[in-house]
Amino acid sequence: MSDPLVIFMPSGKRGRFPTGTPVLTAARQLGVDLDSVCGGRGICSKCQVQPGEGSFSKLGVTVAPDALSPFNAVEQRYDEKRGLRPGRRLGCQATVQSDVVIDVPAESQVHRQVIRKAASDRALTVDPATRLHLVTVEEPDMDAPSGDLERLRDALAAQWDLRDLTMPLPVLRTLQTALRKGNWQVTVAVNHHAGAIAGVYPGLRTDGLLGLAIDLGSTTIAAHLCDLATGEVRASGGIMNPQIRFGEDLMSRVSYAMMNPGGDVEMTTAVRSALADLAAELSGEAGVDARDIVEAVVVCNPVMHHLLLGVDPVELGQSPFALATSDALRLEARDLGLDALSPGARAYILPCIAGHVGADAAAVALSEAPDQADPLTLIVDVGTNAEILLGNRDRLLACSSPTGPAFEGAQISAGQRAAPGAIERVEIDADTKEPRFRVIGCDLWSDDPGFAAATEATGITGICGSGIIEAVAEMRLAGLLDAGGLIGSAAQTGTDRCVAEGRTHSFLLWQDGDRRILVTQGDIRAIQLAKSALYAGARLLMDELGVDTVDKVTLAGAFGAHISPRHAMVLGMIPDAPLDAVGSAGNAAGHGARMALCDVSARDRIETLVRQIQKVETAVAPRFQEHFVAANAIPHATAPFPHLGPLPDVSFNQSSGGRRRRR
Amino acid sequence: MSDPLVIFMPSGKRGRFPTGTPVLTAARQLGVDLDSVCGGRGICSKCQVQPGEGSFSKLGVTVAPDALSPFNAVEQRYDEKRGLRPGRRLGCQATVQSDVVIDVPAESQVHRQVIRKAASDRALTVDPATRLHLVTVEEPDMDAPSGDLERLRDALAAQWDLRDLTMPLPVLRTLQTALRKGNWQVTVAVNHHAGAIAGVYPGLRTDGLLGLAIDLGSTTIAAHLCDLATGEVRASGGIMNPQIRFGEDLMSRVSYAMMNPGGDVEMTTAVRSALADLAAELSGEAGVDARDIVEAVVVCNPVMHHLLLGVDPVELGQSPFALATSDALRLEARDLGLDALSPGARAYILPCIAGHVGADAAAVALSEAPDQADPLTLIVDVGTNAEILLGNRDRLLACSSPTGPAFEGAQISAGQRAAPGAIERVEIDADTKEPRFRVIGCDLWSDDPGFAAATEATGITGICGSGIIEAVAEMRLAGLLDAGGLIGSAAQTGTDRCVAEGRTHSFLLWQDGDRRILVTQGDIRAIQLAKSALYAGARLLMDELGVDTVDKVTLAGAFGAHISPRHAMVLGMIPDAPLDAVGSAGNAAGHGARMALCDVSARDRIETLVRQIQKVETAVAPRFQEHFVAANAIPHATAPFPHLGPLPDVSFNQSSGGRRRRR
Repeated sequence: MSDPLVIFMPSGKRGRFPTGTPVLTAARQLGVDLDSVCGGRGICSKCQVQPGEGSFSKLGVTVAPDALSPFNAVEQRYDEKRGLRPGRRLGCQATVQSDVVIDVPAESQVHRQVIRKAASDRALTVDPATRLHLVTVEEPDMDAPSGDLERLRDALAAQWDLRDLTMPLPVLRTLQTALRKGNWQVTVAVNHHAGAIAGVYPGLRTDGLLGLAIDLGSTTIAAHLCDLATGEVRASGGIMNPQIRFGEDLMSRVSYAMMNPGGDVEMTTAVRSALADLAAELSGEAGVDARDIVEAVVVCNPVMHHLLLGVDPVELGQSPFALATSDALRLEARDLGLDALSPGARAYILPCIAGHVGADAAAVALSEAPDQADPLTLIVDVGTNAEILLGNRDRLLACSSPTGPAFEGAQISAGQRAAPGAIERVEIDADTKEPRFRVIGCDLWSDDPGFAAATEATGITGICGSGIIEAVAEMRLAGLLDAGGLIGSAAQTGTDRCVAEGRTHSFLLWQDGDRRILVTQGDIRAIQLAKSALYAGARLLMDELGVDTVDKVTLAGAFGAHISPRHAMVLGMIPDAPLDAVGSAGNAAGHGARMALCDVSARDRIETLVRQIQKVETAVAPRFQEHFVAANAIPHATAPFPHLGPLPDVSFNQSSGGRRRRR
Repeated sequence: MSDPLVIFMPSGKRGRFPTGTPVLTAARQLGVDLDSVCGGRGICSKCQVQPGEGSFSKLGVTVAPDALSPFNAVEQRYDEKRGLRPGRRLGCQATVQSDVVIDVPAESQVHRQVIRKAASDRALTVDPATRLHLVTVEEPDMDAPSGDLERLRDALAAQWDLRDLTMPLPVLRTLQTALRKGNWQVTVAVNHHAGAIAGVYPGLRTDGLLGLAIDLGSTTIAAHLCDLATGEVRASGGIMNPQIRFGEDLMSRVSYAMMNPGGDVEMTTAVRSALADLAAELSGEAGVDARDIVEAVVVCNPVMHHLLLGVDPVELGQSPFALATSDALRLEARDLGLDALSPGARAYILPCIAGHVGADAAAVALSEAPDQADPLTLIVDVGTNAEILLGNRDRLLACSSPTGPAFEGAQISAGQRAAPGAIERVEIDADTKEPRFRVIGCDLWSDDPGFAAATEATGITGICGSGIIEAVAEMRLAGLLDAGGLIGSAAQTGTDRCVAEGRTHSFLLWQDGDRRILVTQGDIRAIQLAKSALYAGARLLMDELGVDTVDKVTLAGAFGAHISPRHAMVLGMIPDAPLDAVGSAGNAAGHGARMALCDVSARDRIETLVRQIQKVETAVAPRFQEHFVAANAIPHATAPFPHLGPLPDVSFNQSSGGRRRRR
């Protein structure tokens, strides 16, 4: 008679095992993903399984009620102490007696799909690089002296078949105490991706390892503190990048490094201490010990990347924009100044795509996965630089375009960062030319009753990036602005809100006594430059692929989440596309960081993908300049925008006598 | 016709190569040790060879005058600029034309034997872990962006077949500047032992890499600064271990760590900064840049080992004396606070043998190599702890014995460290009982004319370790001391120099007015304890091997170099042996460190040997106590000392009436 057949679900993996084989052993031999921290000692309860019973016609087996050994004392004790759900067994205790179908519930799998509502709506695969392994270590013997570390290594090899793991000095410092406190039984956190021991804890530890997914932006540093076993976000937060005091945008920071000896070191120190502060803040918020953070994943643009590593970014400021290193980096977290995390904490930095297209763009590619889909997708991550990806499963291109900070509210007369009090939405009545708007921190429109009272606390302080885009687009739609970007006079537009300022006009968005918020001709020009750069970058990639249209446009980044697709298209920021094909991906870079944190296979995926991405350098492409110039109009003339419908046909060219005319 | 035969001498390696094969290429294919930094570009001149001519009957070849290609333009230019010795060729330029015998001179070999007069008289094999490799790196290309590091890695793989090398962040920081300064040609220092890039230098660099061999003792930290290519000692020096302020001996430092929270950290900080100071001092003395130091090798006892690593040594202070780690350690030098060395400098710490027998004893084993010889050798390294090795090529044993600091002059009434002014040699006339002595810093004996004037500067300040040993042994030889260790009275000994102090007597070694140097009964007891511990350790190992005598006794350490073997034997410090079989090995631990620094194969050798050494723990061996008690006499009674000849048969036991008697 042949050995009993064991079939694991949902994987369907099957094999025959001698009667009496523990379920966990069978699972391991078949490569079934069944968790275990204690390695079969019956104490961690991670290996819970649910045996089936009766006839499984599709699988061709009938399972007897006694297909597994009876509930044993260990299971009994566990059930009494902690409670085992009906039908559940401990995989290391239950042994195979006859043919059996065994379901591995999601919570007993190391590798699992989770769908979260918070922090991101996307599915996330959890398959952490760092796992826990309980080992029993031999006690020291004077007659055969060997180090505690060497005996720990022996135990990991014998009990888990884990070899050649490195142990950083800070972990070695904790080893002897942990071994003695745990009475020679310790749980070892092993970072399998780095081949390193990340921590040693006395006794059995089954959970609570944490990781930080960090999106290190030029302006803001955002991070999620995640439970590595579940992917759950325990806390999220952001702080300003303190490097701002050395320069608002990337190039001004590169200049600072060039002009000031030691300037790069100052900026490195600043950003590292901000990361450390953020880690402490999030740990405090989640009520956890920062020393339980065993991994950090960082995504950032190339200049931030170099400054975080302590590499002078000067080469990134001049052609040919050579990165010091482009590959993904596996470091010790303390190398980045993250000393307060677990003593063995590791850092993983995603690869950079090119000198202007960083690990943040790689994270967006990881998160949005255009390479795994058929539609030709244009992904735009707007910041001080816009990173642009275009492609599908056949081919993927990337470039970066120097949009400047206008989209972030800088270089705009009344511009400001997105903060309470900033105008973020604008509508202008096409007939009356009267504007209304909303400010951040208030759900009412400015012409709703109660708006004044509701905004009393914040005031109306300026206009942020999404606000200025809507304002300019609405001005164009309302006929206050011509295709060339000129604001009409009061006479030309029929509204007193168009006020003369020198030789040009401004549009008065809001006034309260002396305080006014205007959209000036200068503001329009700044937005035109930024949107031309963005469009020219996208267009350059489309040329490279030989296409005139795209199937899908994804706006990534916090900014992308707040832009109205229609206004972006009126402005000519993005190529024409059906409005329902334009969507926001939210903080895709941050999500990519979280994916790389929680799912070790995502790291291989992005490292492979980055090598396949075709890099296009905008800075030296003659066609970029051509597209840039041609894209100046609102919307521009180089491509038709059939999905927009007709726009007001106005021209306020002053040299033509200042008269409003129809062509 | 077959291809020309190429025979390399002195290795005798031979092979046939197509006409036109460069000599360097042939050497590489045969695995002949022929140096090259530039990889065959004809610019480093490291691959010089000397072709033979005429008949080589033993080798069975006749070499024609044109066996190699004629002197080419590259060789011509090199000869004009730098001068090539007559008959010498550049191995990368000269090509094989017919059968040839090629001599590789010593200076063209990477791996070589050198005999130095300075720092040590021993032969040293030079085969450094860190070697220089010139590479030409592709310039960055915007259209195929990749990091400078990735292109450097490609060049190392393509031009040197070197792969998977790590690059520490501090080296990465220097990479971009070096590449541009060298116009994309750089010399890379590769630590082949660590698989790491230790430095990147612009253009061609052929020499000047340095290493530190550090002997980190409880009292003194000594180091040699060596040229890694030649083994030459560029500077040597020592400083006091600043940890002394936390405790004179090891156990008092362990106690300090136990009693004072953070005490271990204080001691770690102190020793690391002392190492950094010593590195700076030696660099200054040698007139070199500390940033050219790419390697450091450290030997030390287990407590120093743990304190250097930052591991609390508390476990070493109590049974079972468990080491945190016993294996050799490959670290970055900056991990030990050696930040001022080369940014990629590595540290190698020799393995520890046991909880009481450290990397210093391993270094002694490496240096003295008792495992490679037939005579049964006893090696004693005397410090606050004595490390004892016993064995030959069949078997090697090791133990440590707690001698305490008496041999270092501590716990001795007039004791002091070995410093100018300290009495280091003593003779006592057997008839007159009059002593004479020498002090450190003066070559005259105290009864020589001019002694007073010659010692005026230093004075006579005390008695050091070797001095007290000679004093005690001479007292025994002169009949002033009985076998039990009692000093006789003036009446018993017939000299007024035996003065009563309470119930015991002291021997007056020197007096100048009020200032006196005495050997007290307490001093004798302290020396008896120390020598009993030392002898008991040696005896324990002899028991383990089942032997009563040894073939050879080697006294290691600075102290060992100053002890007179005969006096040591009179004292009973070491087992009886013919006097010419007792020798000093000088600073064997320091020499072992230098071997491990300059010869990478020595590291494998000691790591293998340490695993084979049988460790004997004295602290819990009942026989150790027995031997210790039995070894109290001077010399002791447990083993005969036939080589000593008869000693005065005196007894000053006070209970027997204080009379001098003959048994």
